[in-house]
Amino acid sequence: MAAEALKCRECKTEYPLEAHYVCERCFGPLEVSYAHKPVTDVAEARRRIQAGPQSVWRYADFLPLAGGPPQVGLPAGCTPLIKADLLAERLGIKEVWVKNDTANPTHSFKDRVVSVATARARELGFEVLACASTGNLANAVAAQAAALGMESYVFIPANLEEQKILATGVYGTNVVAIHGNYDDVNRLCTEVSGEREGWAFVNVNMRPYYAEGSKTIAYEIAEQLGWETPDRIVSPIASGSLFTKIAKGFEEWLELGLITGSLPKMNGAQATGCSPVAQAYEAGHDVCRPVKPDTIAKSLAIGNPADGPYAVELARRSDGGVTAVTDDEIRAGIRLLAETTGIFTETAGGVTTAVLQKLAEQGEIGSDERVVIVITGDGLKTLDAVRDTFETHTIDPTFDAFEDAFAIGAAK
Amino acid sequence: MAAEALKCRECKTEYPLEAHYVCERCFGPLEVSYAHKPVTDVAEARRRIQAGPQSVWRYADFLPLAGGPPQVGLPAGCTPLIKADLLAERLGIKEVWVKNDTANPTHSFKDRVVSVATARARELGFEVLACASTGNLANAVAAQAAALGMESYVFIPANLEEQKILATGVYGTNVVAIHGNYDDVNRLCTEVSGEREGWAFVNVNMRPYYAEGSKTIAYEIAEQLGWETPDRIVSPIASGSLFTKIAKGFEEWLELGLITGSLPKMNGAQATGCSPVAQAYEAGHDVCRPVKPDTIAKSLAIGNPADGPYAVELARRSDGGVTAVTDDEIRAGIRLLAETTGIFTETAGGVTTAVLQKLAEQGEIGSDERVVIVITGDGLKTLDAVRDTFETHTIDPTFDAFEDAFAIGAAK
Repeated sequence: MAAEALKCRECKTEYPLEAHYVCERCFGPLEVSYAHKPVTDVAEARRRIQAGPQSVWRYADFLPLAGGPPQVGLPAGCTPLIKADLLAERLGIKEVWVKNDTANPTHSFKDRVVSVATARARELGFEVLACASTGNLANAVAAQAAALGMESYVFIPANLEEQKILATGVYGTNVVAIHGNYDDVNRLCTEVSGEREGWAFVNVNMRPYYAEGSKTIAYEIAEQLGWETPDRIVSPIASGSLFTKIAKGFEEWLELGLITGSLPKMNGAQATGCSPVAQAYEAGHDVCRPVKPDTIAKSLAIGNPADGPYAVELARRSDGGVTAVTDDEIRAGIRLLAETTGIFTETAGGVTTAVLQKLAEQGEIGSDERVVIVITGDGLKTLDAVRDTFETHTIDPTFDAFEDAFAIGAAK
Repeated sequence: MAAEALKCRECKTEYPLEAHYVCERCFGPLEVSYAHKPVTDVAEARRRIQAGPQSVWRYADFLPLAGGPPQVGLPAGCTPLIKADLLAERLGIKEVWVKNDTANPTHSFKDRVVSVATARARELGFEVLACASTGNLANAVAAQAAALGMESYVFIPANLEEQKILATGVYGTNVVAIHGNYDDVNRLCTEVSGEREGWAFVNVNMRPYYAEGSKTIAYEIAEQLGWETPDRIVSPIASGSLFTKIAKGFEEWLELGLITGSLPKMNGAQATGCSPVAQAYEAGHDVCRPVKPDTIAKSLAIGNPADGPYAVELARRSDGGVTAVTDDEIRAGIRLLAETTGIFTETAGGVTTAVLQKLAEQGEIGSDERVVIVITGDGLKTLDAVRDTFETHTIDPTFDAFEDAFAIGAAK
């Protein structure tokens, strides 16, 4: 495989491609590094990708897998990229596309990262899948484990909304509800991952592989735009991993000459109620000061984001930014996307859409720009957010009642 | 276009391809009839399809559209066909595939039928989309109208679950809640469709076009199996339209020589609490006696199915059948599919999976058969059905508490 090592993002120390996630020398995070062969025939390399499966595995050459595309498991990725002309018109900008990751098997981008982490975990001989999650990741791990016939354990805060627990337990996973908050869950998972041989915690000891899965969003966008980068990406930021790996995907392919263009302006989107990265960006700081989350965008509610500093750095160097929006703006963002595209997103996508709207209103988006917003999860998972945002007309079952209610008898 | 007329299923009277749905002579249902040119070069015809878009529009030549594939709207179809080896193993049968229509934009097969009805409605100059629905169809119509910038009206029973109303109203449709049951809603919609020029009720005056959308499931299955028919299809029956149109899709392509094989054995699946078609099939009757629905499978709860007699006839002539399962079996069916495939389906898919299980247990499925089950909608839409079907372990955030709860300290 082209992946050659895990490398510390800070001190560059290298480790073998196993279940490591933190540098033993400096405690920095580990990342997969590659030694790709130069692409001599771009057209042939593109054809090879296009001839692959309709899933993230068409990009197996660019992922840390020794054995090539897995033949089993729930296929993630290859989600639609939809031109959103009505949304662009509403915002007064030229060209907007929606990368609709609600189309994944469990309806969030987490299926991508779980796919890659799981495939590598199986190559390394792990037998049990696990994760610390507050929702989307739990769904994805439980579903992937079921599809593969693997045992799984999903660790969640005990006060998680019942709907997220139902949509996880259904797959026959072991649901471990923890008296405590997400930090407590994470801490316990780190401890368990140290004690249990054969257990792959996708977002703990498998984190470097897990994170690579997010690159496939960039690959797909570029492929779907005809092997070109867009001018700007708007993507949510939770830990900062998704945001930075999308950029890594574009940069890898630009370096290989597989696509044309340059690194898009990278705009991160956060909720005001949990915006450590936006705050650091605004204040001109390099590091993020942890916050206590208080927002309806629970899937983005990471108060101490592991990749926060890298997200700030990326926003600066790509001439993008990091913007925060209020809970009311998030609700309005969900409605705006639904009304103009027919895509119903969860609160995280409301954050992303609201940030796009804010950038448009502030005149940040150039008149000739092609913008892609990354919609990471489905509205059916956070239905509460749209309650009381529209009116329902209740009438008797008669034509007269209908005419009275809508007062359109004479008009049409 | 190859479509040449609307034809009465009973007396064969023909009508132009406009907004008609019932025969003026005999009150029979109208259906689109085609005059396809013979396919002289099968390989070329297949390549033409494969080169089309990743949506139902790759089959535009076989749909009642004058203007070819629409370039706008929410793309439906081209959902995964997944080989379910763990499910097959659990049931002791050889080969099962899952047609996963939860992957559609609003996560049910209704996106297909709405796509086709809407495209034809726009060709005919209609400006407003409408429907009578109890859930999935409402989501699909509201979303499609939003994506196209069309005005829409969605008529629902006032006592519909709030989650289905939220997942509809978010798109900015006019939600019309009717004091009454689904029959009352339907009756009012029929009346309104007669009074409102320019209003396309997808499942009333557009019904012949709407129904054609279901054929694309057969086209996709055949294409995904390498241009072959499977041996058996298990599909839910509500009105009977989906069930009979899947067969129509296979038959059209078999007749054109586009695919090999023969009409699959067609097995219909109903809930015991609303099983007029299964009852007619069992009793050897040609017509279905209406029932009052009482089942958790609400999306199948049509007590007086319009295409019931055609569904019974199809089950007989294809050597299939129609089988009913209880609400408990439906819940177990949802769990079985989730645990073995990672696909979380709504109650209708639980019905389908439970019927597959019953057929397997009864020895109905031959040892060399390739079976496809059609999973029409998403589990996130009927979360209540899986409550209390699994255990959640709640513990303190310590390693000792974890070990105590799972008693695996010594084992691994």
